[in-house]
Amino acid sequence: MRSRVYLDWNATAPLRDEARAAMIAAMDVVGNPSSVHAEGRAARALVEKARAQVAAAVGCKPAEVVFTSGATEAAAVLGRLPVGMVEVEPTAHDCLWSQRRAGQGSRAIGWGYANNETGLIVEPPARAEGEILMLDIVQAVGKVPFSFAWSGAEMAIVSAHKFGGPKGVGALIIRDGVETQPVLTGGGQEMGRRAGTENIIGIAGMGAAAEAAQRDLEAGVWERVAELRNILESTLSLAGNNTISVGKGRARLPNTLCLIAPGWKGETQVMAMDLAGFAISAGSACSSGKVRESRVLRAMGYEGAEAASAIRVSLGPETTEEAVLRFAEVWSAQYAKALNRAA
Amino acid sequence: MRSRVYLDWNATAPLRDEARAAMIAAMDVVGNPSSVHAEGRAARALVEKARAQVAAAVGCKPAEVVFTSGATEAAAVLGRLPVGMVEVEPTAHDCLWSQRRAGQGSRAIGWGYANNETGLIVEPPARAEGEILMLDIVQAVGKVPFSFAWSGAEMAIVSAHKFGGPKGVGALIIRDGVETQPVLTGGGQEMGRRAGTENIIGIAGMGAAAEAAQRDLEAGVWERVAELRNILESTLSLAGNNTISVGKGRARLPNTLCLIAPGWKGETQVMAMDLAGFAISAGSACSSGKVRESRVLRAMGYEGAEAASAIRVSLGPETTEEAVLRFAEVWSAQYAKALNRAA
Repeated sequence: MRSRVYLDWNATAPLRDEARAAMIAAMDVVGNPSSVHAEGRAARALVEKARAQVAAAVGCKPAEVVFTSGATEAAAVLGRLPVGMVEVEPTAHDCLWSQRRAGQGSRAIGWGYANNETGLIVEPPARAEGEILMLDIVQAVGKVPFSFAWSGAEMAIVSAHKFGGPKGVGALIIRDGVETQPVLTGGGQEMGRRAGTENIIGIAGMGAAAEAAQRDLEAGVWERVAELRNILESTLSLAGNNTISVGKGRARLPNTLCLIAPGWKGETQVMAMDLAGFAISAGSACSSGKVRESRVLRAMGYEGAEAASAIRVSLGPETTEEAVLRFAEVWSAQYAKALNRAA
Repeated sequence: MRSRVYLDWNATAPLRDEARAAMIAAMDVVGNPSSVHAEGRAARALVEKARAQVAAAVGCKPAEVVFTSGATEAAAVLGRLPVGMVEVEPTAHDCLWSQRRAGQGSRAIGWGYANNETGLIVEPPARAEGEILMLDIVQAVGKVPFSFAWSGAEMAIVSAHKFGGPKGVGALIIRDGVETQPVLTGGGQEMGRRAGTENIIGIAGMGAAAEAAQRDLEAGVWERVAELRNILESTLSLAGNNTISVGKGRARLPNTLCLIAPGWKGETQVMAMDLAGFAISAGSACSSGKVRESRVLRAMGYEGAEAASAIRVSLGPETTEEAVLRFAEVWSAQYAKALNRAA
């Protein structure tokens, strides 16, 4: 049996070896980071080491990193800002999109910096004085150069498992002085910004993954990934006359291909390719299994039938050229069959 | 050098071997549980296995288990119930206490079933028709028999790291049909009750720990812990004429000793014992380092000076008689010195 090919890195990336080692080491640390005794201080040290690692990868100060259970929890802070209205750009992830709030007066903006479905990178708009910007950099961290300090944003949201850390841990990056209401209250951890005993094993893994991701990015690992994505894009585009590579030629993530294959439903493509040994997705993982068109593609002007025929193929540093070519071959043959059945 | 003695199990318990093994195995599972392909389904299977394990340990149906980032996140649901007022009993943990809301009309109640500082187990009060009860069973699970089904409560909150699972994962136990607003919104995971990619490594660890904790409880492991606690209690009570063992003789956790040593501040005791090689606490871990009297002890009627002179010594299945006797000897000598200095 041929081994399976994982091409769904935007849904979640495999755990990096560095993260695994850091997590296993953290399993031996007994204390609660809030405890003042030696065991507690050892746990605290792990958290602070990871905070510095994440800060370095994101381009912010360690004190601007608030560990959360993931980007979704970090996004919830947008909805709790003491402002009159919260606006969110229409291709943003559901965790930001669900924070919208109508109203008058002061404004906060949620902005998807790198789209999870299309890979498109869109710089945020100019803002009026005093407006608060939250950037979703979940898909950007580790794949493209990004600096929170240079971005000018007040807040950003990060998820560890998108860059080789574990699932269930992430961070809110928040500039000093931005007033928020915590989503979780109680023990007053994370300088009062987020209560709850820290996920020290996950946080240690996130820190190690952030450091490794930063190193790989600087070493040019994603340039090779982009080459493979481009090979895949050219090959697949030849397979059908009307296929659309969404965002081709625009600034986008190096690893993401969003392909519309008219006449072949996205969910059907995912199932057919799964049976053939390939993991891809139709839209974001969270919306998998919910049969509906992509809100992102509709917002970009694609019609219902087009938006329903899209897949996302997302590569990573472990992806090989052989795997990409095999995928292209199988997908093209299946697409031809699907069009024949429909004809 | 003598090895350190960890007597702060109520702050956090060491990771169980079963949890460690399950977590390391889960590190090899690549998929996002929301993805429909084989990798996603493998991740989903881990989550559902853990859900059944937690349900068995807590005495509820698997469908009543909603995984969260910990008890604090689960407690936040109390504050979001569509009721007129939220009342919380005064010895409850801060994560429940912070959910209080004044108002008129329908009522929800937050209740600490087993107190983290004193170990006291207090059954919830009778309720009027339609009132919603959330039980904090964080310290009870795995230490004393408890069944959510028999409790009559609508909700309960659970934390993995108190029974040998990892920190940063927990559960909201919620009876079918109870209407709540999710704390985290977006991807619609956990049947719409809690958004965010699941912490599959942590959840796998929680499930394995729950199963092991249930097995140990049934095997009578905590009866031996209670014997050690009682030996410690008798020994320490002899060390000072005015020491008070809070809750002695009442229903309480088998492992917890809350001792008031008049004339010796709790924080000073913790520091002195830490230097001598023992990890204990003054109040909950979350409130460590914040110099203030225990809200719990004040609510129980202890005066300021008494409440400020309390320590919590909490044992676990790994605690030995030798360790307990050594602690008693060192603590008694230090207390005598402290009283001499004060005299």
